[in-house]
Amino acid sequence: MDIVVGFVESPEGEAALARAIEEARLRDGKVVLVHSKVGGDEDAADYVRSAAALEEAHQRLHTEGVEHCTHEYVRGRSPAEDLIATVETHDAELIVIGIRTRSATGKLLLGSNALDILHDASVPVLCVKKS
Amino acid sequence: MDIVVGFVESPEGEAALARAIEEARLRDGKVVLVHSKVGGDEDAADYVRSAAALEEAHQRLHTEGVEHCTHEYVRGRSPAEDLIATVETHDAELIVIGIRTRSATGKLLLGSNALDILHDASVPVLCVKKS
Repeated sequence: MDIVVGFVESPEGEAALARAIEEARLRDGKVVLVHSKVGGDEDAADYVRSAAALEEAHQRLHTEGVEHCTHEYVRGRSPAEDLIATVETHDAELIVIGIRTRSATGKLLLGSNALDILHDASVPVLCVKKS
Repeated sequence: MDIVVGFVESPEGEAALARAIEEARLRDGKVVLVHSKVGGDEDAADYVRSAAALEEAHQRLHTEGVEHCTHEYVRGRSPAEDLIATVETHDAELIVIGIRTRSATGKLLLGSNALDILHDASVPVLCVKKS
């Protein structure tokens, strides 16, 4: 079964990818890596900046020998919308996302994308923190 | 490896238990069922009321033939605190919790316990909705 993981260039994103690879092995499944930006000038620049990190993620999937495919979306949808749409097209059984821990001041840091995914996903969502 | 699951008497709680059983099979692990109430008169009555449902959950674990143990806590801690403490004592690798979907009016329904668990857990949290 397919496992959809959101690509984010951060320690949390890396932890999510590592866990998605583990889960794919455990389930004999495929990792579906989704890189999503809404679009617009600022977002587009950010998209380009993260190209090297995305290539690194691809390489990691190759090196780990896990069946995988990637989707790169800049089509005006939020990352949450793109992840959820990908779950449907792939008939995936799991979403893996990276989430941030509390800040030093104890402020809650769960982002709006993570919340949207948790609320709207039709499949279980595995929330992973940086190691 | 151990999988900690929060017992809640609801369709979401049932879905979480079902998923925890699946995950335990997949990982050749043990299900650690945690029933937690803070305490006090109201909570104590609620605790007693849910005895039948808890027994049903036990029976399910027996019937499914999954290695398991249960903890019942009424010691002044929130369910989030009890779940997280149990992860530590069991050296568990995963928490499974049931979460509610959006209401008909689109209101966000992620409860404070779910948020606390997501923010404070040191291991990945699998969030499951009712099927």
